[in-house]
Amino acid sequence: MNGTTGAGRKPTIRDVAAAAGVSHGTVSRVINGGHWVSPVAREAVEQAIVATGYTANHAARSLATGRSNSLAFLLTEPQHLLFADPTFALLLRGATEALAQRSMTLVLMIADTAAERANVERYVRAGHVDGVLLISSHESNPLLGSLVAAGIPTVCTGVPLGDRAHVPTVSVDEQESAREMTRYLRGRGHRRIAVITGPNDTPGGRHRLEGFRDEMGDLFDPDLVEQDVYSSDAGAAAMARLLERAPDIDAVFAASDVMAVGAIAALRRSGRRVPEDVAVAGFDDSGLAATHDPPLTTMRQPWSDISSAMVDMVLQVIGGSEPDPLVLPTTLVVRETA
Amino acid sequence: MNGTTGAGRKPTIRDVAAAAGVSHGTVSRVINGGHWVSPVAREAVEQAIVATGYTANHAARSLATGRSNSLAFLLTEPQHLLFADPTFALLLRGATEALAQRSMTLVLMIADTAAERANVERYVRAGHVDGVLLISSHESNPLLGSLVAAGIPTVCTGVPLGDRAHVPTVSVDEQESAREMTRYLRGRGHRRIAVITGPNDTPGGRHRLEGFRDEMGDLFDPDLVEQDVYSSDAGAAAMARLLERAPDIDAVFAASDVMAVGAIAALRRSGRRVPEDVAVAGFDDSGLAATHDPPLTTMRQPWSDISSAMVDMVLQVIGGSEPDPLVLPTTLVVRETA
Repeated sequence: MNGTTGAGRKPTIRDVAAAAGVSHGTVSRVINGGHWVSPVAREAVEQAIVATGYTANHAARSLATGRSNSLAFLLTEPQHLLFADPTFALLLRGATEALAQRSMTLVLMIADTAAERANVERYVRAGHVDGVLLISSHESNPLLGSLVAAGIPTVCTGVPLGDRAHVPTVSVDEQESAREMTRYLRGRGHRRIAVITGPNDTPGGRHRLEGFRDEMGDLFDPDLVEQDVYSSDAGAAAMARLLERAPDIDAVFAASDVMAVGAIAALRRSGRRVPEDVAVAGFDDSGLAATHDPPLTTMRQPWSDISSAMVDMVLQVIGGSEPDPLVLPTTLVVRETA
Repeated sequence: MNGTTGAGRKPTIRDVAAAAGVSHGTVSRVINGGHWVSPVAREAVEQAIVATGYTANHAARSLATGRSNSLAFLLTEPQHLLFADPTFALLLRGATEALAQRSMTLVLMIADTAAERANVERYVRAGHVDGVLLISSHESNPLLGSLVAAGIPTVCTGVPLGDRAHVPTVSVDEQESAREMTRYLRGRGHRRIAVITGPNDTPGGRHRLEGFRDEMGDLFDPDLVEQDVYSSDAGAAAMARLLERAPDIDAVFAASDVMAVGAIAALRRSGRRVPEDVAVAGFDDSGLAATHDPPLTTMRQPWSDISSAMVDMVLQVIGGSEPDPLVLPTTLVVRETA
C-alpha cells in the first residue's frame, strides 16, 4: 500500500499532496471537510490517500467537527437482518436517542455487498458524516480497515477479531457471559447441555463457545456443538441436527434469542416440551425474549448503554482522543424456558 | 415569508444574495452543492433562502448531480413503526435495490419529532443528499413544505392531501382499491361489513373510507366505521369497539394488514372464528399477510414498483424535469381470511 513512500516510513500529508499533484493545503482542506476544494481536486486527493496508505490524524479531522453534524449507523449485514433481528432496532433506538440529545442527525446505511461497501465508503470519505458507528461482528468485513485507514472516526460494536486493537470498541465479556449462563444451566441439574453458537468469524460465535466449553469441563461433548448464522431458521435446523445426533439432550444454550426461538420450534416439532423436557436459554434479551411464549431465559446485553457509549466514544475520537475499549456487563434474566 | 421582496413577485437568486450580503455567484454555488463556499457564507445564504422564501429552480440544482450521489429515504413516522410495519421494510428494500443499480448510496433518516425534523432538514439542505424519497402519509407533517421551498428534489409516497400538486408523487388509487375490496366482500354474501381505516389526515385513511362508503351504498352504516393509527394494537382496540356496538358484524375491511392482524386477535378473544364467523380483509400485502395464520386476504400494493418509480422520479427532478404524478395498480389477493 505504501507505494510512494519509503518502506517503514508512515506516509504524511505531503506524500499525499505529491501523489495527487496538489498543494499540502488542498490535502488538508479535503481531510478537514472539503470546503474550498474543487470536486476534481477532491477526487485526486482521495485517490492519493488510498494509493499512499495515508492515515489521517484524528485530531486534524476534529477541526471539521460540526460540519455535517451527523453520524452514520452503518450496518454491515444483509438488510433483511435489520428487520429480522430485534437487536439492531434496540441499538438503533439507543443511538438515535443519544444523537437527538446532541442535536445531531443519525443516518442509517447498509453495506452488505461489495458494491454497497464501495458506495458507502465513498459517501463517508466525502465527509457527509462526521463518524461511523460500525454495527458488525464479522472479521471478514473489509470496511473497517478501509474506514480506519481513511481516518474516519469509527467505533465498533463487539471486539473485532484479528489485529485491530487501535479501533475503539464497545462490547460485553462474551466468554464470561457464556460461562455464567452455562453455570446456571448446570446448577439447574442439566448434564447433556448442547450449544448453538454463531459463526466462528464473529466474536460472539467464537468466544461464547469458548466460555461454554471451559465451564462444561469434563461434561463437554463436541457432538453437542452447532454453529450457524444468527437466524431463527438456522437455530431450528441446528436443533434438528443436534437431536438426531443426541436425543438425550436436556438443555440448550443458544447464542442469540432469535436462534433460541428457532430451536424451541424444532424441539416442539420433535414432540419435546420446553422447559419440561429440554430447557432453552438464549442470549441478547432482544425484545422478543420477553414476548415469546413461553418467555425466554437469556443473557441481557445493555443495548441502550452500548449505543450511547458508542456515540460518546466516536465523539471523543472526532475530538482527537483515543478512548480505551469499553466492556459492559451482561445480566442473567431468568424467565420460563430454562 | 416573502419579507424582502415585493408582494406577488417570486423571489430570485439576486434577492437571496442581497439578503445574505454575498454575490449572486456565491448563492449559486451554495444551491449547486456548496463547493468553493466558506461555511460562514453558506450559513448566511441558507438563512437568506429561508427569509426570502426563495424556491430554487430544480434545473439549476441539477448542475450538482453526482456530488453526494445519494438519496435520503426519509421516514416521517416514529422509529418503532419502521420495525412494526413491514411495509416500510418492503419500500426500503425496493429503494435500496433501485439505488444499487445506479451505484448510489441510500441513507435512511427518521424525522418524527420537531427536533429530528430540524436536524434532518439542516442535513438535507446542506447538500449531503441529492434528493429525498419522503415516506409519509400525514398531511400535518411540515417537512414536505420546507423541503420543497428549499428546492430539494423530493418525491412522496401517496398523494399528499391539501394544496401540494407541484410535488411529484407515486401512489395507488386508494378509492378504487377500497371499492374493489368492498365489492369482493359483498360478492361473498356479507352485508354487515365494518371498516377500520387509518387517520383522516392520511390519504389512505380518508380515501379508502370514501371508496368503502361509495361501494356499500344503502348498506353503509356509520356505526360500523372506526378510524385509528396503522398499528396492530389500534386494530384490536377498534375491533373491540365495533363488536360492542354491532355484535352482528359479518366482515371487516381493515385499511392495513397490521390493523387486520389486530382485528383478528380481538375477534378470537371474543370467541369468533375467522373467516367462519367474521371475514377479515387487509390492505398492503405487506409480507405478514402471507405468513399470518390464517393467511390474509388483502389488496397488494406494488411495493417494489413504488420504490423504483420514486427513485426514477426524484432523479428526473434532479435532472430538471417535472414528472407527472404516477398511480400504480393494486391487486386483490384472496387467501383464507375472507
